[in-house]
Amino acid sequence: MKSAKYLLCITLLSLLAACANQPDGSGPLLIQAQGSFAAGGTMTTAPGTFNPRKPMVPDGQTYHGDHAYTFYQIPVDARKLPIVMWHGAGQFSKTWETTADGREGFQNIFLRRHYGVYLIDQPRRGDAGRSMVEATVKPVPDEQLWFNQFRIGLWPNYFNGVQVAKDAQTREQFFRAMTPNTGPFDMGVVSDGVSAVFDKIGPGILFTHSQGGGPGWLTAIKNDKVKAIVAFEPGSSFVFPQGQVPAPIPSAFDTVQGATVPINQFMALTRIPILILYGDNIPEQAVDLPAQDSWRARLEMARLWRDAVNRHGGDVRLVHLPEIGIKGNTHFLMSDLNNVQIADLISNFLKEKHLD
Amino acid sequence: MKSAKYLLCITLLSLLAACANQPDGSGPLLIQAQGSFAAGGTMTTAPGTFNPRKPMVPDGQTYHGDHAYTFYQIPVDARKLPIVMWHGAGQFSKTWETTADGREGFQNIFLRRHYGVYLIDQPRRGDAGRSMVEATVKPVPDEQLWFNQFRIGLWPNYFNGVQVAKDAQTREQFFRAMTPNTGPFDMGVVSDGVSAVFDKIGPGILFTHSQGGGPGWLTAIKNDKVKAIVAFEPGSSFVFPQGQVPAPIPSAFDTVQGATVPINQFMALTRIPILILYGDNIPEQAVDLPAQDSWRARLEMARLWRDAVNRHGGDVRLVHLPEIGIKGNTHFLMSDLNNVQIADLISNFLKEKHLD
Repeated sequence: MKSAKYLLCITLLSLLAACANQPDGSGPLLIQAQGSFAAGGTMTTAPGTFNPRKPMVPDGQTYHGDHAYTFYQIPVDARKLPIVMWHGAGQFSKTWETTADGREGFQNIFLRRHYGVYLIDQPRRGDAGRSMVEATVKPVPDEQLWFNQFRIGLWPNYFNGVQVAKDAQTREQFFRAMTPNTGPFDMGVVSDGVSAVFDKIGPGILFTHSQGGGPGWLTAIKNDKVKAIVAFEPGSSFVFPQGQVPAPIPSAFDTVQGATVPINQFMALTRIPILILYGDNIPEQAVDLPAQDSWRARLEMARLWRDAVNRHGGDVRLVHLPEIGIKGNTHFLMSDLNNVQIADLISNFLKEKHLD
Repeated sequence: MKSAKYLLCITLLSLLAACANQPDGSGPLLIQAQGSFAAGGTMTTAPGTFNPRKPMVPDGQTYHGDHAYTFYQIPVDARKLPIVMWHGAGQFSKTWETTADGREGFQNIFLRRHYGVYLIDQPRRGDAGRSMVEATVKPVPDEQLWFNQFRIGLWPNYFNGVQVAKDAQTREQFFRAMTPNTGPFDMGVVSDGVSAVFDKIGPGILFTHSQGGGPGWLTAIKNDKVKAIVAFEPGSSFVFPQGQVPAPIPSAFDTVQGATVPINQFMALTRIPILILYGDNIPEQAVDLPAQDSWRARLEMARLWRDAVNRHGGDVRLVHLPEIGIKGNTHFLMSDLNNVQIADLISNFLKEKHLD
């Protein structure tokens, strides 16, 4: 009996795969497996001997920290390579979840496209908050900085045609999608953590956002299980071979400076396909608004980096979306109103590179 | 054509409901909807005027914080009431996710039983880390304290017959399932946050763990959308009517003291069914080990609280698991090796109370 039911269920499941996980966002998600785990990190032991009668004294006690945390879902009929989605500064897994205005984010969109999806909280952030280094978390008002920096508009005005909903509830959800560092941001620590995730799961595709871009390059250098990178508006940390670092690019916000890695490490980045996307409202010429101008300098450095990697035989494609007619995108391409269109771009890229 | 396919899919889906979401942990999960949002919280605005040319200056900028964060999943063929799962001290949503030894936690188990599941990160914890109050996060070694306090054993020994896997990898995952407070723990703030979740989702069942127990009572007092509570080893914060607070119960760890609420607030707790569960290795007589003795005092206060609520017409059932022959449970009943048995107990309770 059980066997007959099993066979029936298997048949139904395969038929249903055509119904569930619909790319258009309708229908249920059919999840083969889901769960969470910590990866990487270090451990310290306080000197002395633990006394169970004085448990508040650290003597002889251990402390594990600096791991990454990931929640994953593997759909039925999953493609071979899953996608690891890594947030940027001040953010966490939410970047890829429900959008601020309540639509499906890349977590659901790529599950529907039959990719396994791993959402990261990087070491010292959010659910991976146990840091090996002390930090103070201060409630400093900063949201108008982010509104501008994320190129939603020039506070309190929205850019014309910007791809975000403008109601108060959306704005509030957006601001509440931040969570602080619980330890100093450290490129080595966070890339070690995400590299450890790849060690656990095997080969996969890495999506990075913003500040995650820099340590994303380091992760691919450390771990050849990173089979491709899609970098959404990578920030200021681009790595170049020794002696080939471009001149720093000053902006009204900061100075964008390339970092140096040994040539053999740099070469790892020439061995995988890389797609870099930047949105709209990035000026081509210097302006005296820090938010806009910081992205001008970053986009400029990203182009120099693309050229450097490709000069060494790499396969980096940089798409500045307005140049291909896609307008109005903010720093959060993955949750903008046209995020299905952005996902289509990426699906096509993955297909072209035989990663789907 | 599309309509015919739609009808076929609906038919397949209803047939598949018997295959997917299997209570025994086999087969895929069939998820109708999933996503995340922030709920509740407050907002402050710095005096002055925001200057986009000086974005690092807080003047005139806003700061949203003290919200709860929740990731939810609603299965196909969901029961009427979803379950909101709320962690304890030092923990986050992970409490209910994959167990330290890699089995399914209550998130998956209750999804398979057709409950919608909302996992909470309470205000000032994990992915809801944006706190309105400053805090310093210190990496103080404390894991042997927790090993004992969570009644896994007496470090480095495990209790005989304890319901946990004893390998090093499990222990490491367990220790890495903690994340710190990013602001002071505040019963009012965290209960406001979870109450705001209920305001968004409507009537539901609340599961609390440990330190979440106390603010769990406050949440039910604040919000009549809490239709039942299952409290897993609630900690020290039991609320009594004015003038009816029992004498404090000293222990080798601390003194357990009842808190006071007005009688009309207390009466809210008499109007919903409440199940309280405690595990094994809690002594009935005082011992000089702080970890064991703290739970003796908490269990004693919980019994007094049950009696107080029931005396006022309430419906509190307290189950000390060894008394019904269920042995070896730690403080983490929901992830112990016998967590399916524990889930069965709860399913029966919800059925008996017509909440399923």
